[in-house]
Amino acid sequence: MKIAIVGSGAIGLYYGAMLQRAGHELHFLFRSDYEAARRDGVRIVTPSEEFQLEVNAHRDTGSIGICDLVVIALKATSNYALADLLPPLVGEKTQLLTLQNGLGNDRLLGELFPRNSVFGGLCFVCLNRIAPAAAQNFMPGSVSIGAYRQRGDGEVEALGKAFEAAGVKTRVEANLALVQWKKLVWNVPFNGLTVAAGGVTTDVIVQSKELLEEARALMLEVISAAGALGLEIDSSFANKQIDVTIPMKAYKPSSMIDFVEGRAVEVEAIWGEPLRRGQEAGVSMPKLELLHGLLACICK
Amino acid sequence: MKIAIVGSGAIGLYYGAMLQRAGHELHFLFRSDYEAARRDGVRIVTPSEEFQLEVNAHRDTGSIGICDLVVIALKATSNYALADLLPPLVGEKTQLLTLQNGLGNDRLLGELFPRNSVFGGLCFVCLNRIAPAAAQNFMPGSVSIGAYRQRGDGEVEALGKAFEAAGVKTRVEANLALVQWKKLVWNVPFNGLTVAAGGVTTDVIVQSKELLEEARALMLEVISAAGALGLEIDSSFANKQIDVTIPMKAYKPSSMIDFVEGRAVEVEAIWGEPLRRGQEAGVSMPKLELLHGLLACICK
Repeated sequence: MKIAIVGSGAIGLYYGAMLQRAGHELHFLFRSDYEAARRDGVRIVTPSEEFQLEVNAHRDTGSIGICDLVVIALKATSNYALADLLPPLVGEKTQLLTLQNGLGNDRLLGELFPRNSVFGGLCFVCLNRIAPAAAQNFMPGSVSIGAYRQRGDGEVEALGKAFEAAGVKTRVEANLALVQWKKLVWNVPFNGLTVAAGGVTTDVIVQSKELLEEARALMLEVISAAGALGLEIDSSFANKQIDVTIPMKAYKPSSMIDFVEGRAVEVEAIWGEPLRRGQEAGVSMPKLELLHGLLACICK
Repeated sequence: MKIAIVGSGAIGLYYGAMLQRAGHELHFLFRSDYEAARRDGVRIVTPSEEFQLEVNAHRDTGSIGICDLVVIALKATSNYALADLLPPLVGEKTQLLTLQNGLGNDRLLGELFPRNSVFGGLCFVCLNRIAPAAAQNFMPGSVSIGAYRQRGDGEVEALGKAFEAAGVKTRVEANLALVQWKKLVWNVPFNGLTVAAGGVTTDVIVQSKELLEEARALMLEVISAAGALGLEIDSSFANKQIDVTIPMKAYKPSSMIDFVEGRAVEVEAIWGEPLRRGQEAGVSMPKLELLHGLLACICK
């Protein structure tokens, strides 16, 4: 396949490099790391190996041309740029895959390209950019892929196989929206409260009896909203999420790292969009309202 | 009257100096400003005048002895010290007046001294400590005084007259708790959101459409709690409070100044105690719960 990686941060670098090594023709869109990528290629570090690849590095998408698959790995806060970036890459049969956080990214792609297949992937992984055009993957992790809209039967399964063949543990999900909302059950409270509390680690939330209760209540608001949208998540899922968070100790959620390091936080994708969808479905989300309002102000 | 000022910050200095100048025998309890007060006395700056008074400065309350009136002007976060500080000052007929923020201060005094009269005063004033033992009052302002518990008829009126005679515009309130809750209708959202948003001025809240709605919703939670406690505040009071806040522009609520300057914030008096009382009265306060949890974490 000819594949474009739009947004070559840690996520884009890692999955792009894995796909290239498996034999696909990869094209990476870079901003600040363009020169480094042209000079040194892309470097990937994992717990079991380290490798470097020469890559097709691009400064704009016009030089890439139509692809079979376009992987969007920009921060969702840069989604405003997609309407300009993507058209040179997308032909009649091009598939689009967003690996971005939160809600609304797949819908945006679907609106921009109403005749193309659009997929969403959730990355359960601990990936950091460690230098220009270099990413480190601290745990093997996995990707869950589902279809937002597919033109032909079996497309999402084929996409999952391509990822598996590239050495990425992949789950194909029958219901993409359900998986997205389940991830939000954790991200809304823990990414949110760690930022709103000034940039703290998850243990600070867990150890505050009051904030742990707020985290649980926020989870239940998210679960209620999902339920009203026809996505059933059992309320016991909230307690399970808390149970898995306790042993994480001083974990830094991605939004908290972005916040502390002065980068944009994906406020609308992670908090704004779930809030709007829940409220449109008639669910009262008073705590998410307040949290979203604070985050929108703090992260401006 | 022989009057002790317990806590000689801006509030204690100003009202103590006014009462001393009116002929009362004042005794000020100091911590860090003791030496400055002994050497230079107390200095007060107002829009219309500036004056300096020699004062009776004390390092502990044992050297003051029994007073007619004890004015508590410590931060509520230091209330744990009152059980040690106050007994040397309080005889059978001693009156106690708290000028502290939030809820619970009068109740604590009432429990410590179950046979004495206890009053609460709310200071609507813009007072800052500008140097050791020096306070500046930026606007005349007023004090609202009410009885938490009085032994004899007319005590609160007499206390109000003493303040008036000292040049302090004073209102005597029939219902102290009602006035306290009405002040909380403003303090809960504006002191709280300006801290929770990282230490911003009130205009930032007012200019965020979302946070202004959160402020309004927090006000309505406070009004509901007051109502459940038998203290009727019309819901239109919330809009009126927003109307008075808009022209304040970049105002810094006292808690926000405390937070930004690294001093203790009165989290339990302003948010914790109203939350507990509202919940005990069966009122759902989801936004105040979250705001209180965040503030307790941020201001630790």
